[in-house]
Amino acid sequence: MFYFEAMSVHTAVASTSPGSNEPITLARHAREIDTWNEEADVVIVGMGAAGASAAIEARGHGADVLVLERAADGGGSTALSGGIIYFGGGTETQRACGFSDDLDEMYKYLLAASGPNPDEAKVRLYCERNLEHYAWFKAQDVEFKPSFFAKKTTEPPGDDGLFYSGNENVWPFNELAKPAPRGHKPRTPGSAGKLLMDKLLTQTAKRGVRQVQDSRASSLVVDDAQRVVGVVARRYGSDYAVRARRGVILAAGGFIMNRTMLAAHAPKLLNVNLQIGNPGDDGTGILLGLAAGGYAIGMGEGFVSVPFYPPSKLLNGVLVNAQGQRFINEDAYHGRTGDNILRQTGAVAYLICDEAHFGRPLAGMQLKAASETLEGLEAELALPSGSLVATIRYYNANAALGQDPLFHKAGSYLTPLERGPFAALDLSAKSAIVPGFTMGGLDTLPSGEVLRPDGRVVAGLYAAGRNTCGLPRSAAGYSSGMSIGCATFFGRLAGTSAARAEPVG
Amino acid sequence: MFYFEAMSVHTAVASTSPGSNEPITLARHAREIDTWNEEADVVIVGMGAAGASAAIEARGHGADVLVLERAADGGGSTALSGGIIYFGGGTETQRACGFSDDLDEMYKYLLAASGPNPDEAKVRLYCERNLEHYAWFKAQDVEFKPSFFAKKTTEPPGDDGLFYSGNENVWPFNELAKPAPRGHKPRTPGSAGKLLMDKLLTQTAKRGVRQVQDSRASSLVVDDAQRVVGVVARRYGSDYAVRARRGVILAAGGFIMNRTMLAAHAPKLLNVNLQIGNPGDDGTGILLGLAAGGYAIGMGEGFVSVPFYPPSKLLNGVLVNAQGQRFINEDAYHGRTGDNILRQTGAVAYLICDEAHFGRPLAGMQLKAASETLEGLEAELALPSGSLVATIRYYNANAALGQDPLFHKAGSYLTPLERGPFAALDLSAKSAIVPGFTMGGLDTLPSGEVLRPDGRVVAGLYAAGRNTCGLPRSAAGYSSGMSIGCATFFGRLAGTSAARAEPVG
Repeated sequence: MFYFEAMSVHTAVASTSPGSNEPITLARHAREIDTWNEEADVVIVGMGAAGASAAIEARGHGADVLVLERAADGGGSTALSGGIIYFGGGTETQRACGFSDDLDEMYKYLLAASGPNPDEAKVRLYCERNLEHYAWFKAQDVEFKPSFFAKKTTEPPGDDGLFYSGNENVWPFNELAKPAPRGHKPRTPGSAGKLLMDKLLTQTAKRGVRQVQDSRASSLVVDDAQRVVGVVARRYGSDYAVRARRGVILAAGGFIMNRTMLAAHAPKLLNVNLQIGNPGDDGTGILLGLAAGGYAIGMGEGFVSVPFYPPSKLLNGVLVNAQGQRFINEDAYHGRTGDNILRQTGAVAYLICDEAHFGRPLAGMQLKAASETLEGLEAELALPSGSLVATIRYYNANAALGQDPLFHKAGSYLTPLERGPFAALDLSAKSAIVPGFTMGGLDTLPSGEVLRPDGRVVAGLYAAGRNTCGLPRSAAGYSSGMSIGCATFFGRLAGTSAARAEPVG
Repeated sequence: MFYFEAMSVHTAVASTSPGSNEPITLARHAREIDTWNEEADVVIVGMGAAGASAAIEARGHGADVLVLERAADGGGSTALSGGIIYFGGGTETQRACGFSDDLDEMYKYLLAASGPNPDEAKVRLYCERNLEHYAWFKAQDVEFKPSFFAKKTTEPPGDDGLFYSGNENVWPFNELAKPAPRGHKPRTPGSAGKLLMDKLLTQTAKRGVRQVQDSRASSLVVDDAQRVVGVVARRYGSDYAVRARRGVILAAGGFIMNRTMLAAHAPKLLNVNLQIGNPGDDGTGILLGLAAGGYAIGMGEGFVSVPFYPPSKLLNGVLVNAQGQRFINEDAYHGRTGDNILRQTGAVAYLICDEAHFGRPLAGMQLKAASETLEGLEAELALPSGSLVATIRYYNANAALGQDPLFHKAGSYLTPLERGPFAALDLSAKSAIVPGFTMGGLDTLPSGEVLRPDGRVVAGLYAAGRNTCGLPRSAAGYSSGMSIGCATFFGRLAGTSAARAEPVG
């Protein structure tokens, strides 16, 4: 009926040390390091979107940069993603597609989307410098085709460069800020994450960023003044110590792969069965930051979704819970829908379709029941007698008038469900594809400096991307593109900050 | 409609240092301490239920014990509470009231109630030693009157010693474990927290526990080996340093008084407008533990309630959201109801009553609307046309048959709402009394030892009560009595552990 899963959360180490019961020492004193294998101005842990952006920018500020990458090559979770970036305020792409946008409207939207505890300073800065950040991507050779994909989708199937990637034009967000599509997709057919990372990695190589792969950071090195002065990685079974003259940047991803950490911090994400991430997203970066004195916030939140569209005609269906009641406007962004499904009794949800609007979801949700009549469907789903029939009757009567008094679904998706056969797709958390990732992480200033529990900075330590609690802080408000937007923008700032820091002694 | 509250979470220090912008140094090195003002085997921060229990037990094991208390006297939040303790498995009180109970059933219930991430080891130990813990209270001169209060209530209004203090006999929990009342109230008319703490404080005094009041712990003192060896408190404007030979126990309460920390960790608790706690519940104890190397878990969870009963006849009403739909069995424990209200659109909820069952809630919720007819009430509440009428029609038809197919409310509260005038009480989060407290805190072993992010213990540091993430870990499952039960039981274990620890050099 609800959560029962029993699990002990004592040994975060267990799952941060896959295949080994040997405890990790997350922080070491500088005096324990006999030999530094390497040295650089700025040492970056992780070569995903945040790390690559930090590296490019730190190099641009003249720093000697070394990146420790756990995998055989860079790319991180961004390379596995759709590659969407959240831009607005009138980008070239938006204007070419005929949309006017405004940074104030973008700010209002993002602040609500990042709720309930948005970092106002980060949201403001992200908006203020957004067009510059867009231009930066173009300078890294990332293109956006000036064409708009109009259908509701998780990402454009072709190479269109612009689409609605969140709740901008969906109630109640459409009452808060003037909607505009802000999901920007790098030009490529299909998912663009790989392309995006290829472009960024090309830049890091071209600019002389040193990358050391197969190197899993296992300790931060701290001196007597509590300053972070280096990193020890495990590399081919040995320690590999890298001294950082100006700073260390943690950019090693979230913790969606670490079920112990999920249980301890964000138990709702235990429902996730399609982890959006790479095997390195096991929280190591966050734990390293904590062990060096950092403070983690927003650890309870994460993205969770039940992406039942495309095809977008499914949005004409009606989503009901175990009581046969509606609980959301079906045209909400799939993350908001997923978050709401988890709030329902037993996380049970069915999408009720008539014949005209039935389709197979791209994500492969299963047919739970089918019947010539709604009464039959209700019985097959074992919903309380009369509940579904009453819900659809109410919905139909209003849809016929082009209205949805309960949840204000857009008129284009409002059609009475009158002609059988009817079908129910199973969107329950236990049956459906439930993608997700974490949003909590180290508390940082917009500069990337990592904060302690008392609000002071951890000298020499910076973080970006999912190692931090950044822009996205709510599954209920998330829009696609916020993660890569945040990782790259604040990754750049962290790179700049570290490159400009005074070198150690 | 949903959360918009914008707040920056950068400076936890701001609200942990009331009336001062001076940064706190949460951890100091032992070499910075010139003079120790005092010394003891075991130093305890906070003289609430956890601290007092730890002190009694540490003394019992022969330790010299000193307690630093921030307020003018001990008592903590427990002294302000109802004083309920969660006991089961066939206590003397239960048996005298004619109830048989079983520790296995208690275990099953508590594991579900502590979900979604219960600490199985703590739940098991709490149950296994429960009758011994009950006997310990009697040995501290705490009595429970062998009489059962049968009505649904937040706590017995008189001096009855036993009642249902959670969801034991409520769907779906009643399908998981055999119900028994386990809320034990110390014998006194009205709230028993003050009495309970008076008894425990009498014991600490009698046993020679040293208490230093007006002393706000501001730093833990850590030596070269990362062991905690003392505490510095602020006392009358000066530092007051106490050396701890065997250990320091943090027992300084949760963070419901710290809105910055709530936003950073448990934003849903920003809805709380009646903080269950004392002004010292500002998270200092947790932050001290973090700064000394501890790890915090479960920080996103907390108790939140909309206690609309007593009078219990209000449970015959029907609770609806902004869509005019039911969303919970109205006889659920008030914490579970409150948690569910926060999941509804805009956290809007109305309790619909007929004339026969209307009453004024003890907690003072306001009348939102009244009408001779349900149609009129629906219009007054500005609910979608026809929604409330349909909900009540469905409810009534089933209630007449003694059933609630949607949420399985107990038959005794199922009466059709047929005779007007009808009234709606406003249980929306923005209008109602919403009590709450936090549940997240330091990750500890059952022994009270504080764990680091890598699963190793912080030598010399223990914690109990709301400074830890203990038994209660879910608003949706909470039962009254779990907090004091947890604080006292694991406080005792922490006291024992610290007293038995090897002294520092």
